[in-house]
Amino acid sequence: MDLSPDWVVGFVDGEGCFHVSVQSHPEMTAGYQVLPEFVVVQHRRDIQVLYALKKFFQGGVVRVNHADRYSYRIRKLEQLERICEFFMNHPLKTKKNVDFRKFRKIILMMKEKKHLSQEGLKEIIDLALQMNTTERPALEKIKSALENG
Amino acid sequence: MDLSPDWVVGFVDGEGCFHVSVQSHPEMTAGYQVLPEFVVVQHRRDIQVLYALKKFFQGGVVRVNHADRYSYRIRKLEQLERICEFFMNHPLKTKKNVDFRKFRKIILMMKEKKHLSQEGLKEIIDLALQMNTTERPALEKIKSALENG
Repeated sequence: MDLSPDWVVGFVDGEGCFHVSVQSHPEMTAGYQVLPEFVVVQHRRDIQVLYALKKFFQGGVVRVNHADRYSYRIRKLEQLERICEFFMNHPLKTKKNVDFRKFRKIILMMKEKKHLSQEGLKEIIDLALQMNTTERPALEKIKSALENG
Repeated sequence: MDLSPDWVVGFVDGEGCFHVSVQSHPEMTAGYQVLPEFVVVQHRRDIQVLYALKKFFQGGVVRVNHADRYSYRIRKLEQLERICEFFMNHPLKTKKNVDFRKFRKIILMMKEKKHLSQEGLKEIIDLALQMNTTERPALEKIKSALENG
């Protein structure tokens, strides 16, 4: 299955997710690891679309998400940089584009190793907290730990 | 906001729904009314995308669905015929295309007034029962009423 850039933008406008989580990681300089990812989840019946996305973006991993659902995920920084380039050249049309812009800022900061400093990490967490619509209690907790530590 | 055909296909692959319901309607010859619709639902924040779809397809209605969600709906038969033409020329890539093909069969049958006969109505209900993934107890009930009546 071959995909066109416009189809990919439309499908990601509907089904894609740009997400950044932060996990405690004592070996990292700032004590935390930043984990950005681009994800598309589909029911098993549409797994071939996930493989078509993998082919289109020339990277990422398709695996079971939970139950009947499969995910296509990109987590490698250099592949995420390519994703960002693509969506700069082919802008999303929904408000997901607002999340994407913040996601891209985080990716660019990581490319410049800013996530390794306490200062940069705080900035990244603030950006991540503005993304997506769900509450992020874990991220809020890390934020206040950084502010009080 | 202007949409391209490929973007529309990608977005509908993710967010669109082809749905056929059947309601009791004593004034109709077969006693039931067939109600096909094409629907896209979005959070209020993306209402401009729904209006862009309305402009793209030159028909349909945008209105509140429930709570913060809005729907773009096409219910008029002649507009649905145009939708079917569009998705025949620009095929969906997900398994939603299987639903669409059944939907189109129903639209073509309605164009030929087959839904007005008991026989045609039964055939339409059988097609509708093969569409979408949710259970359709109301439709099953009408089906057995037709078979026993």
